[in-house]
Parts: sequence; structure tokens; C-alpha cells
Amino acid sequence: MRFAVERLERFIVDVLTAVDVLPVQAEVTARRLLEADLRGRTGHGLIRLPQYVPRIEAGGINVRPDIVLRRETPVSALVDGDNGLGQVVMTLAVETAIAKARDSGLAWVGTMHSNHAGAAGVYTSMALQHELIAIYLAVASANVMPPWGGQERLLGTNPISIAIPAGRETPFQLDIATTVASHGTIKVLAQAGESMPEGWVVDLEGNSILDPHRADEGFLMPIGGYKGSGLNIAIGLLAGVLNAAAFGSEVIDHRVVPGQAANTGQSIMVLRPDLFRDLEEFKEAMDHHLRAQRGSGPAGAVHLPGEGAARMEAEQLVGGIAVADQLLAQLRALGTRFGLADGLEG
Amino acid sequence: MRFAVERLERFIVDVLTAVDVLPVQAEVTARRLLEADLRGRTGHGLIRLPQYVPRIEAGGINVRPDIVLRRETPVSALVDGDNGLGQVVMTLAVETAIAKARDSGLAWVGTMHSNHAGAAGVYTSMALQHELIAIYLAVASANVMPPWGGQERLLGTNPISIAIPAGRETPFQLDIATTVASHGTIKVLAQAGESMPEGWVVDLEGNSILDPHRADEGFLMPIGGYKGSGLNIAIGLLAGVLNAAAFGSEVIDHRVVPGQAANTGQSIMVLRPDLFRDLEEFKEAMDHHLRAQRGSGPAGAVHLPGEGAARMEAEQLVGGIAVADQLLAQLRALGTRFGLADGLEG
Repeated sequence: MRFAVERLERFIVDVLTAVDVLPVQAEVTARRLLEADLRGRTGHGLIRLPQYVPRIEAGGINVRPDIVLRRETPVSALVDGDNGLGQVVMTLAVETAIAKARDSGLAWVGTMHSNHAGAAGVYTSMALQHELIAIYLAVASANVMPPWGGQERLLGTNPISIAIPAGRETPFQLDIATTVASHGTIKVLAQAGESMPEGWVVDLEGNSILDPHRADEGFLMPIGGYKGSGLNIAIGLLAGVLNAAAFGSEVIDHRVVPGQAANTGQSIMVLRPDLFRDLEEFKEAMDHHLRAQRGSGPAGAVHLPGEGAARMEAEQLVGGIAVADQLLAQLRALGTRFGLADGLEG
Repeated sequence: MRFAVERLERFIVDVLTAVDVLPVQAEVTARRLLEADLRGRTGHGLIRLPQYVPRIEAGGINVRPDIVLRRETPVSALVDGDNGLGQVVMTLAVETAIAKARDSGLAWVGTMHSNHAGAAGVYTSMALQHELIAIYLAVASANVMPPWGGQERLLGTNPISIAIPAGRETPFQLDIATTVASHGTIKVLAQAGESMPEGWVVDLEGNSILDPHRADEGFLMPIGGYKGSGLNIAIGLLAGVLNAAAFGSEVIDHRVVPGQAANTGQSIMVLRPDLFRDLEEFKEAMDHHLRAQRGSGPAGAVHLPGEGAARMEAEQLVGGIAVADQLLAQLRALGTRFGLADGLEG
């Protein structure tokens, strides 16, 4: 079933304010969640609301956070999120990085005491709106695999997003977990009653697990074996350890222990392309190369990073956001529980 | 056969100066090549000297480059290499980025009109010596695969290195091609007369090619399918297009057209960890987490990025650098041709 973005936004704000989130923070969170849905990152959108509510109610997320910038320089800041909603903390981090990059050309902002912030691409998109390059790194909100060769779950799906503006073409935007599959994607399959492909989740003996409801019994696999494992660790060190945020055994599964603060860490780097080339010239060169890459296969065969998300966003802005049945039932239950005027019925 | 580092350094300098490279630039190049060998990056070390010589002789590399910093800001510069040796251009780029990061906290330096610069980790190692974090990206010096879904070779092995200092532990240092295999690794197998594993190189029908001498007939494969393909493109855009350096169809195979300038591009970002955490505290946290990751498997099972290279470097600094027979014959032929006092005989 499809719903207009504005209606879902109102619904999320109503639910979050019902559990005492400040209206302005509820609005920012709603926007970031729906941006994920709009771009087809269903695993990091609305589907998370029924997880956030019990975390907030259990005191695992602070609804009156004192979010402050620490150690500020013209090119950097550490945002202490005071355990506020991840979308709120990361939005401030990106806005700070954008402002500093506009002034200084380049900025790197980290977060500590943050929380699950949803889809990586949502934050690099904010930089794209200012024709800035951005790289986002995050420590994922649960450990799902050991380092390559190990046996203990010490690493998450640690995502990376890299966004690069273009001219007339859709901007380049990579938005990937460094595991073959992500928790969000598995959650979507579980709700749809579908099974996982071979090689997504593997048990201690190396056999694939196909039932998404049994995913927690196995390990996710990094992309590219030891290479992806190394990239995953690098992301964790730069988004977690560098910011004095959780990494390795410090990472809690935010769904399992709702009352416990997560100290999630994220990092965002923002770069002004005109440090290296006149902006118009750069955008034209981007257009040229993106077209050439797309033209290197039969029509429709090459999907450049960001194109699918942009197409979905354009479609859903008009036709509304599709909400799967199981999720809709969960959302309606929240609506009933909080006695909302619009509980997404009918 | 093993040779002391100093002897090989002298040999490289003698060969390069024989083809008119300035002594100081020959020394820098020799050092960077041997640092690759020392760290086990055999495909990017001495093995490249017999390729560079014909390129220099054919005029494909400028031995009197006017290397200049363009568009300099406190946090950035574009190094125009004037088609000088890649090691020389990249060394200046890293030194510039290090100096700027020490002052400003963060710096991003790109290169244009550069050349093949060898192993990615060699450059991030230079930042590690100053206890700085570094990320290096490069457009590889030949196209080896299409973007995911395409059929035309428009992408190289585009490597990334990420280095993060530690305290007592070996620093974390990722140094990977974003393809399953790299040209350097394939070249080493070819010289050793060994075959390639399944899935390194694939023909248009998707069948693996096993003979490393036939590698050019197929496509290399990106790590992690579309994810690695996207990461590879991102690296190419940030190291190539952003710097007005070659990308896509502009990339020439520097081994095939020795007389043609390559306009290779590289980028290096350097970051001071104490922007976010006191340095000693950060290094202790790094030590703690690196040990925990290593401890997550049986002894010797988990090899963290950078550990193998550091071990090889320590061993070869004492025992000398191993030079394979076929390469040694090529080097001796150069020694004879240029009438060197020490032609690595005996």
C-alpha cells in the first residue's frame, strides 16, 4: 500500500512526539527515515520506527539530548550526540561539515554518543545539494561477523557512502554495506517471507543459511573476502575508535538491549570540488564520464551507483511510498496505541 | 636470490640516471620502488624498472619535469607532475599533504600529469611515520574491466590504501586493489610460471582464464560485484576526474604505448587524529582494538591489514630483498646495456 510522503512524515512525528521526542527532532528524524524509503533503502526507513519506539521508552535513546560540538577547528568537529536520535546527531554533523567545507574547502566531522542513523546515502545527499563531494562512514548498530580468519562477531555491516556531484546527469552516489548483505536488506526479505541467496550468511562450518529469520545464527560475509574485511575494519576505526565511539566488543545490538546507550559513531568528510577544478568544468567532465560508463554496455545493462535510488525517489515522490503489509500492521498498532488522529488506517 | 636494499637502490639509481633521470628523482623513485618490494608488494617494486626504462627512452615520461603546486589552499593542492616519474610526483604530493595536515589538521592533495607510482601503501606509510591517518586513491595505469553490467574496458584496478597509526601494535594499513586480483599480482604469477585461481580473470562468456599470460584477453573482476565496481568508479572519479587527470577511455595502457603521456591521477587525504582524540589515548585505543580483532580467532588465523607487510619489511631489511630469476635476468641485461659498475652479477 502506498502513502504520500507528507502523511507518513506526520505519522512519524506524531509517534515520536508521543514518546516525548522534541517536535523539531521528530521532524528531522522523520525526514531522514523517509529519505531512505524514497531512495529504496527500505531497510533503513520507516521499518526502523517500531525499533526506535521501544528503545526510546526503555531509556536507550535520550529524548532531551544536549548535542554539542567538541574540539572544533575550521576543518573539523566532534559532535557529542548525548545519546540523541542518530538522525538528529548526524544531521547536525553533516550540516557542520558542509558549512566548514564551504568556508575551508574541506572538512571532517565525527560523531560520538550517536545512534543508528539509517541510510548512509541520506547524509551524502545533503552535501550533494550544495554541489559538494562527501564520504560517510559508520559503525553499524550490531556486530554480524568476525574479522577475516576470526570466529568472534566483532564487526558490523559498516557502510560507506561516496557522493560526487555531476551536471545534467544523476550525481554519482555509492551507498553500500561492506558486507555482501546488510541487516536492513535481510529484514526486508524476512518481512516479505523470502529466502536469502547463497553466500549472504554463513554458519561456523561455512554453510549458507537461507532463512532470513535464522540470519542471527550465522555470520554475514564481507565483500571481497579479506579485502572487504579490511575495508570494514578501516571504516570502524575511522567512524568509531577515532571518535571515542564504540567499536568491536563495545558495540551493542541496539535491538536486543533497548535500554542501553549505544555510543554509535559516524564520520563525514565533505570536499569542495573547485579546490581542484572549476566547478562547471568538473560537472561537465563528470557528465561525460558517467555517460561513457553507462554507454559501455547494452541499453539498461549498466546501472551506475545512485541512478536506481534517484529513479525510485522521483517515482515515489509522485506515487507515494510503498509500505509492506507487515510493517503497515506494526505502524497501525503504534497509531492505535498512541491514539493518533491519523493512524494510517484506510 | 637476495640482495641488500642499498645495493638495489644504487642499481636503480644507476639505471635511471643512465636514461637521464635527475639523480635526486632517481633516488626518490628507487626508494619508493624498494619500499614496495620490502613490504611484499612485489608487483609494484623492482619489477617495474624494466617497464619504466623503455617509457623514459620513448619520451613517455619526462625526465626534466617542472612539477608545480596549483590551486594551493591551507588544506589542499593540485600537484601538476608535468609527466614526471609517478614516484617523484606522488612523494611531493604526500609531503605537501603531510605538511598541510600538520598545520591545518586535514589536507587533500591531488595529482595530475603524474605516472604509475607503484604500491598505494608506500604513500600512506609516509603519513604513518608522522602518526597521521592517510587515505590514498589512484587511477590504475591500464583499464582491465568494464563497469558492472558493461562490456567495454573503462576501469583499472584502482587501488585504495587506508593507514591508521597505533601505539605498540603494527599500524593498521589496508592496501588493496578494488579488483579480486591486480596486474602486479598477475605479473608475479606469470614470471613464476604459476596459474591464476578461478574468478580472477573472466572472458566475455564468464569463463575463468587461468593462464596469467592470457590475462589481457579477459576482464578482471571487481571485489563484491556491483559494490566493488562502484567503489572502483568512485576512486577513479576522485583520483582522476577531480584532478583533470585521465579516467575511462582517456586511460592508456602505459606498457603498450610507451611513448605516450599517461596523465595519471592520484589523491591523498591526510588527517591528524588529535582533531578528535588526544593522540596517546587514540593510540592506546587502537592497540586495544587491533589486539581484540587479532584475538578473535585461533593464534595466527587473523592477519590484520598491514601486519604481513610489516613482517616482510622487517625480515627483508635484515636478509635482503628476494629477486625472482626472470626479473634478475632482465635487471642484469639493463646493467650490461648501460655498462654499470655493479650490474647485480654474482
